[in-house]
Amino acid sequence: MSRVSTPSNGAGEAAKLYAPQAVQSLATRLAKASGVSNSDAEMLADALVDADIHGVTSHGISRLNIYIRRIQKGLIDSDAGLTLDRQLRSALAVDAGNGLGQVQALKTLQLMIPMARESGVAVATIRNSQHFGAVSYYCNKAADQNMILLATTNCEPAMSPEGGCQAFFGTNPIAASFPTGKGFNIKIDMATSIVARGNIIAAQKSGKSIPPGWALNIDGEPTTDAAEALLGTVLTMAGHKGYALALMVEILSGVLSGSAIGADVGSMYKNMDRKQDVGHFLCLLDISAFMDVAEFKNRVDGMIDEIKACRMRPGVEEILIPGERSHRRAMENRRLGIPIDPPTRKELQVLCEELKVPFTLDESAAMEVVS
Amino acid sequence: MSRVSTPSNGAGEAAKLYAPQAVQSLATRLAKASGVSNSDAEMLADALVDADIHGVTSHGISRLNIYIRRIQKGLIDSDAGLTLDRQLRSALAVDAGNGLGQVQALKTLQLMIPMARESGVAVATIRNSQHFGAVSYYCNKAADQNMILLATTNCEPAMSPEGGCQAFFGTNPIAASFPTGKGFNIKIDMATSIVARGNIIAAQKSGKSIPPGWALNIDGEPTTDAAEALLGTVLTMAGHKGYALALMVEILSGVLSGSAIGADVGSMYKNMDRKQDVGHFLCLLDISAFMDVAEFKNRVDGMIDEIKACRMRPGVEEILIPGERSHRRAMENRRLGIPIDPPTRKELQVLCEELKVPFTLDESAAMEVVS
Repeated sequence: MSRVSTPSNGAGEAAKLYAPQAVQSLATRLAKASGVSNSDAEMLADALVDADIHGVTSHGISRLNIYIRRIQKGLIDSDAGLTLDRQLRSALAVDAGNGLGQVQALKTLQLMIPMARESGVAVATIRNSQHFGAVSYYCNKAADQNMILLATTNCEPAMSPEGGCQAFFGTNPIAASFPTGKGFNIKIDMATSIVARGNIIAAQKSGKSIPPGWALNIDGEPTTDAAEALLGTVLTMAGHKGYALALMVEILSGVLSGSAIGADVGSMYKNMDRKQDVGHFLCLLDISAFMDVAEFKNRVDGMIDEIKACRMRPGVEEILIPGERSHRRAMENRRLGIPIDPPTRKELQVLCEELKVPFTLDESAAMEVVS
Repeated sequence: MSRVSTPSNGAGEAAKLYAPQAVQSLATRLAKASGVSNSDAEMLADALVDADIHGVTSHGISRLNIYIRRIQKGLIDSDAGLTLDRQLRSALAVDAGNGLGQVQALKTLQLMIPMARESGVAVATIRNSQHFGAVSYYCNKAADQNMILLATTNCEPAMSPEGGCQAFFGTNPIAASFPTGKGFNIKIDMATSIVARGNIIAAQKSGKSIPPGWALNIDGEPTTDAAEALLGTVLTMAGHKGYALALMVEILSGVLSGSAIGADVGSMYKNMDRKQDVGHFLCLLDISAFMDVAEFKNRVDGMIDEIKACRMRPGVEEILIPGERSHRRAMENRRLGIPIDPPTRKELQVLCEELKVPFTLDESAAMEVVS
């Protein structure tokens, strides 16, 4: 497996690898210096570095700068508590108080775990939240408890309903993790768009065109021009099916939670004058309410073996289980370090200077240069 | 909107329209004559005719014959009770006792409704079941209670994991309905395959080729030959994303329930020597546990208005909401009758003769011929 190829800055400088602990420590100190409490800062840093470890660099440390900038502008309340608008034995309607998405989602999950242990299931809606990073982070936390978390979130507008050409839905991901006896979780974490918007941004930066079928221009016509696509809309996965899934996610995360819906969700980068008001949906199942955990894992492992033994298509060398590639990447990144590209490193350095935090990711701290 | 074009028999005879009540009454009498109890027969008939009313003819009265044949062979226990393997406040692990899928799923849903009313949420796994028809039937029943049902089922093998070319997963659908104030439910009910296997069967029957990207032949190579495709595998929607969704459905419905998994699920038509052992997953949310129902409907209706007002792609005349087309079809079918194709009518006639049930769908009972 080749190393992730991270974007390089204009000067063509390469990304460098850093020890996850070093990055996490710096992220914690920066968050604390921005007014986030000790324990919340640790939660946020853990979530960000976990994404980088799993190769989801788009949801990792590269997001810390914008979170801090939004805290500084009063667009995120770093001191927000959780308010329970409604509470039943298995249901929570949570107001995140415009707090940090990662922190509020993780605190909500911590409330849900004993509920699910007692009743078999717990479901929470969270309103008034932010971008909360990689959804699978929370799903994996649940899997550690021998629970299954199904989770969705709405996000800033990027996709149109089928037939339309105006950004309404976010890329509205669906995620779930399932514990196995194989040393990794089955992990599903997919945008309901045909492709992550980040891929189009990357194509534009490198001056490349995008494949047909990814996006429409502002007039609703298919385009392979990345810049045109960014002004237009990303297409849903599998056309009307992806539209239906994005709509389902919007209702569960946005409508039912009481957060902003569709085009009203704030953009993290573009709207520096208002909060995002993102909504999340978490559905937590305690496996032991349905079946002994050992039996569940045996059954999952048997299924994995059968899937991997399937006859393969011409040219295919291995059938992968969702989550397997990400697990391999995580093993490698824990050992070799996580890649941080020069623009992100520069942002962190500037933050350190502003917030009087020692910058500990200088050249000498790098473990390796990504080839 | 044009009438549904139903398959005609070899002689080219056209489908005819019948009053839903007449079809439902006949289905009830046939099920009773096959040993199904009065109330169970009524449940089954209601589920089948509801599918026909909504235009899902593949899951309607056309399935009654195979259900009865399997009852006659002892492959379905028409007298099965529901056994609760495990029960907590919000969780049920149900053994359907190899009973009729529609009946056992509906009875499970009826147990879940008061649980969700009390705790906010109820989740059930059902094992040892059969093909249970259109998943959206149950979702719509929940929407009638101002609840949201997320439902999945595994099914007989048809699709391969990404990279493989052996049928492992069924077309594993995902369904959910959401009540609105617009006179129809938002209804999502999609196979995780790129296309329903029925479309390939229809192409084969009419001697047509299928579009590229639908299926692989037995060697894992792309094919546009419908007969080759039926020996091979249907592709998942959106490649690896559909694979991940099908896997999620398999774990929730098959693994967690204790039913057969993947390739071990019995085929309703091909395996006339063993039970199917299908598994279902039902997750029921009481809207009022999270938000007042009136507020929820207002918010959904506002979203619908915004979606329908989106700027449209060139050539598009209307943006439809999932469930809207099916609702229009249902209004029309309730008024004009449901189409029954000649082979299905013939099957029903033969069943009537065998079971000494008066055949009430003769020519004179037809309301109209489908053009």
